[in-house]
Amino acid sequence: MLSKTQAKYIQSLVHKKFREQYGQYIIEGPKLLSEAISANLNGISKIYAYPSWIENMPHDWQQHRIEVIPVNEDEMKKISTLTTPGPVLAMMQIPSAPVITAFPGITLLLDAIQDPGNLGTIIRNADWFGVRNIICGEGCVDCYNPKVIQSTMGSLFRTNIMYEDLSLFLDRQQGIPVMAASLEGTMLREVKRTNDVFLVIGNESKGIRQHILQRATVKVRIPGGGETESLNAAVATGILLYWLTVDC
Amino acid sequence: MLSKTQAKYIQSLVHKKFREQYGQYIIEGPKLLSEAISANLNGISKIYAYPSWIENMPHDWQQHRIEVIPVNEDEMKKISTLTTPGPVLAMMQIPSAPVITAFPGITLLLDAIQDPGNLGTIIRNADWFGVRNIICGEGCVDCYNPKVIQSTMGSLFRTNIMYEDLSLFLDRQQGIPVMAASLEGTMLREVKRTNDVFLVIGNESKGIRQHILQRATVKVRIPGGGETESLNAAVATGILLYWLTVDC
Repeated sequence: MLSKTQAKYIQSLVHKKFREQYGQYIIEGPKLLSEAISANLNGISKIYAYPSWIENMPHDWQQHRIEVIPVNEDEMKKISTLTTPGPVLAMMQIPSAPVITAFPGITLLLDAIQDPGNLGTIIRNADWFGVRNIICGEGCVDCYNPKVIQSTMGSLFRTNIMYEDLSLFLDRQQGIPVMAASLEGTMLREVKRTNDVFLVIGNESKGIRQHILQRATVKVRIPGGGETESLNAAVATGILLYWLTVDC
Repeated sequence: MLSKTQAKYIQSLVHKKFREQYGQYIIEGPKLLSEAISANLNGISKIYAYPSWIENMPHDWQQHRIEVIPVNEDEMKKISTLTTPGPVLAMMQIPSAPVITAFPGITLLLDAIQDPGNLGTIIRNADWFGVRNIICGEGCVDCYNPKVIQSTMGSLFRTNIMYEDLSLFLDRQQGIPVMAASLEGTMLREVKRTNDVFLVIGNESKGIRQHILQRATVKVRIPGGGETESLNAAVATGILLYWLTVDC
């Protein structure tokens, strides 16, 4: 049974403002919950699920002091952000921002990635290619946005995501080559890869802002492109991570 | 001024059933319209736009016998599928299905790509890497779905998209190597590229169906993947097209 107050509270977490105020966010579906269990069990505050799902739950939640609240389909529809709500929704604690002092390997720097699906897919790409650290600059969508979380497919729990002004970040972190994805860049095959790199990906329609682009040690371009203006930001990130990590 | 009947007609084109019945679909925004003008001017039936946009229109539509209907913001909201409607929406003729008899270079075979954003992004990838032909198998979302069109960013007008049962297609087209993207495949670097190839991409959650996978000459896997199960379908397609087209 779901109280009106509870339902209203959960619904409010769709908005960044309330996520920040309460320090909580929601995840939906068995797949994401199972990823949360593996990666971040202590982050789970409450679970809302169909009674049939609770009966067959794979874990002893009481042992972990996680409250499990049975809800029916109508109640789930009220609190779910999905068109087709799943059998389970969990409320999670937003972890405190990671403090990262060293940036070995590849670090992604995102300049105003606005589309939630794109940010989620970029986080999933990072996880696939073993990239641990992602710096979201000004104008990036919040990574606890429900659509971002859905697109990450669980990779959110395995990456460090920091929100910081990219200029200030680059001021602090000197000495690591800055590679910017740009249509005016040098073709990949002509560029030398480095072990440590800050890979900058720009906004979906405007690309990388000029004052960030100026910080680039090298600008790179993915070959191709006839009449198309550009690749999708998440696809471009995927190709660049493939190129950076794979001895092809 | 938009009549109720017109508004209802345009709204109905959100549904595949009515698009097929009327042979029409809609595109939105100046960017897509400008792509349609370059690639498929004769396909434009009608344009609905704000008076301010019409005044500064870059083309003489009367010359092309295209009717331009001024609408206000309230009317545009009614017929638009976007959260933030743009100044212009156009009604387009669905072209007759292309008849393609030869498949030089890379042809994409899509097995039940269901997410409109993914299909749109895959079409955009194809255009970027010069892939002309895409075969959408059973279970693929309709390419005239408004969300697909939005994600293609105009690439829809520059690619041939056929809907056909993939088994039947492969029965008819013998002799071209079939490359299937699969988590059980051989790492890319160990695979020999061929000039002509059918590249098969599977469903977002289930991958390629068994009876299609059996037709593969070679199964390929993109290196990477720690705890992540897979890459997004559109990202995987982008990386494979990069690998196939680029001498990296």
